[in-house]
Amino acid sequence: MGESVIVCEVGPRDGLQMAKTRMPTEVKLRWIAAMAAAGVPEIEVGSFVPARVIPQMADTDQIVRGAVAIPGLTVVALVPNLRGAQAAYAAGAHRVSVPVSVSEGHSRSNLNRMPAEQVAEVRRIVEWARGQPRRVEVEAACSTAFGCSIDGVVPERKVVEVAAGLAEAGADEVALADTVGYAHPAQIRSVVRAVRAAIGDKLTGLHLHDTMGLGLANALAGLEEGVRNFDASLAGLGGCPYAPGASGNIVTEDLVFMLESMGFSTGIDLQKLLAARDLLHAGLPAEPMYGQTAKAGLPKTFRAAA
Amino acid sequence: MGESVIVCEVGPRDGLQMAKTRMPTEVKLRWIAAMAAAGVPEIEVGSFVPARVIPQMADTDQIVRGAVAIPGLTVVALVPNLRGAQAAYAAGAHRVSVPVSVSEGHSRSNLNRMPAEQVAEVRRIVEWARGQPRRVEVEAACSTAFGCSIDGVVPERKVVEVAAGLAEAGADEVALADTVGYAHPAQIRSVVRAVRAAIGDKLTGLHLHDTMGLGLANALAGLEEGVRNFDASLAGLGGCPYAPGASGNIVTEDLVFMLESMGFSTGIDLQKLLAARDLLHAGLPAEPMYGQTAKAGLPKTFRAAA
Repeated sequence: MGESVIVCEVGPRDGLQMAKTRMPTEVKLRWIAAMAAAGVPEIEVGSFVPARVIPQMADTDQIVRGAVAIPGLTVVALVPNLRGAQAAYAAGAHRVSVPVSVSEGHSRSNLNRMPAEQVAEVRRIVEWARGQPRRVEVEAACSTAFGCSIDGVVPERKVVEVAAGLAEAGADEVALADTVGYAHPAQIRSVVRAVRAAIGDKLTGLHLHDTMGLGLANALAGLEEGVRNFDASLAGLGGCPYAPGASGNIVTEDLVFMLESMGFSTGIDLQKLLAARDLLHAGLPAEPMYGQTAKAGLPKTFRAAA
Repeated sequence: MGESVIVCEVGPRDGLQMAKTRMPTEVKLRWIAAMAAAGVPEIEVGSFVPARVIPQMADTDQIVRGAVAIPGLTVVALVPNLRGAQAAYAAGAHRVSVPVSVSEGHSRSNLNRMPAEQVAEVRRIVEWARGQPRRVEVEAACSTAFGCSIDGVVPERKVVEVAAGLAEAGADEVALADTVGYAHPAQIRSVVRAVRAAIGDKLTGLHLHDTMGLGLANALAGLEEGVRNFDASLAGLGGCPYAPGASGNIVTEDLVFMLESMGFSTGIDLQKLLAARDLLHAGLPAEPMYGQTAKAGLPKTFRAAA
């Protein structure tokens, strides 16, 4: 058994929010169950945002309630504010993920708030969560940490400033998100080092997009910097409604293939994971599906060398 | 200006040999000229193999003669044997690239020879080349250096053995090829280190495929190991007729985007390179074109940070 790497599937949230049609609730739950059965340890199953803003997320309450019944699965919900966190908690979510844009342009268009105001919102969520009888983890994700399609270059010191603010606000975990997929590997290394110097092990995960084709190269750079938590979406579904040009997340199957090939242990059965693409396709037949592992099939050498 | 990295475009050879239709000779030459005008320093323009085996390469003699007239371009031709090298030399090629499979299964099916016999052929080519009035570089490429679709796992010691044999035979440069695209980044690091320990700076380049989606992650691993020469093909065209399951080379545009973003200097104008896709499409309208950079467009942040 190699060193463990945690893959968090975000397709049901980040993938579906861009889909042109809605995936029926029962198909969504079967899809989530299939990925959990393949060994995916964490799934971001939806977001608590107004249904008029993202109609695909209208059933998140039901989805969370269904997903928490799956044994062993960590159920994550994206929440933009305290009200969303309260709804996620009521539905039984194990963790809430709060997006905090580093760039002002993205912050305004995505959250209608300035970054500092959203850091304050995270503090309110943390304080509220600490007063509840059941533990719920609060993760804060620094969106546009590697560039912004609205503001362009995002200075590293701003990322460090927001990340430090989030750690100080009491977030259990801080993640860095390449929301629009502009990052390159040297930048990943540099920003991860700078943020870790400021907040240490509070920095846990990377959320990467494959906009420019560098997704897995960026994941490798993060991995070699010691990151052990990665978001990804099955078949590379995804995007960001407020970031024009952003394409899907890194492909879960290809990421798992890379990690397992390199000797890391994800706990995921790749054949079963690939089979879960069928449920995704059944629920969203018009959506394109990406991923080279699915196309090429697992090579003869996979695990043969182990 | 950052440190220099040489990108060798192999689309006209490795890309076209798998195409279902033939690209007309004059379109091929215009496509090659457009890539050279974009600043691509080296292009593998074709292979000297029997036309009955790879009909797309039947015009390689004309293509080499046309390409050597392009100022500043290094023209490379693949040659399987001495006869091919003599034809390439007669046409004016600046470099010949000789494939030498490390795995016996691929060697037999691709060259109808055992690896040691092909190393001996490289020695004959080197000796013949040294006797000619004009200098022609002899590069030997270790095919299936990271795995084989026929034989499966390829032991590292066999790669080192073949590479050492090629250096000893007098090859000017030795490259490592992930012919079927099975490599993973840790393996790239390990094999590059082992081969360099054996033959030093005679190891120059990496030839990578994106079969499993790890192409650019593998390029990054090689780059960080000090490799400064990479093969790639525009729009990710390519494959290997003797290696079932192998898909295209790494995408030139995406590789250049990664390298330039990281501060390396390729000498390539990415906008002009992207425009050259139109000529490729005109010459092979039915062929699928890959690449995220072309799909997403260059981000606001590209070169803004420099």
